[in-house]
Amino acid sequence: MDPAHPLAARHCRKGRLPRLTGGAVEDGLRELGGWSLVEDGTRLRRAFRFADFKGAMPFVDAMAALAEREGHHPDFAVHWNTVEVTLWTHDAGGLTENDLVLAARLGALPEAGS
Amino acid sequence: MDPAHPLAARHCRKGRLPRLTGGAVEDGLRELGGWSLVEDGTRLRRAFRFADFKGAMPFVDAMAALAEREGHHPDFAVHWNTVEVTLWTHDAGGLTENDLVLAARLGALPEAGS
Repeated sequence: MDPAHPLAARHCRKGRLPRLTGGAVEDGLRELGGWSLVEDGTRLRRAFRFADFKGAMPFVDAMAALAEREGHHPDFAVHWNTVEVTLWTHDAGGLTENDLVLAARLGALPEAGS
Repeated sequence: MDPAHPLAARHCRKGRLPRLTGGAVEDGLRELGGWSLVEDGTRLRRAFRFADFKGAMPFVDAMAALAEREGHHPDFAVHWNTVEVTLWTHDAGGLTENDLVLAARLGALPEAGS
């Protein structure tokens, strides 16, 4: 990844993107931190934890607004104080640059906590 | 269930409640509609569907506000236009009247659609 253009400074791109190679995904994971590959490397997942259910909801709302702005939508599950987010690109059948960008932007949300 | 006090008109109660018997759960399910028993009868689940991700979020926010008002919180997962809600009472290890009440109140939310 180009250090002059960190993932969190980019935006998701429209149109079909190529599925990333394993090496590109590994490079992205190193830059991101906190995310894991799941489901045979086809998806990224991260659990964001908060004080309680009420504390998790501002992150959910900020995530939803970000997803609409970027035109790329995560799956997520809320279990009391934990929001488990799963990213992939449906029409690529796996991970694209858009998933790395959304992962970085989600981690950079003030509502995501530290 | 007492027809003079439908589930959606009740509120969740504080304190430990007894786990419902199978018969009481079945009675509740008939009154509710739309909900299914899952995980060996220990949880209720319903999928609420919307036009798209953006259309699902007002329901998510209304559900979160209701959960805070009632002091009883669902698990839920958002997959694009679908919000899958799972209810149970943690300290009862299964279903209590509070789950039936929350299920009824969720179904009665204007944001839940028809």
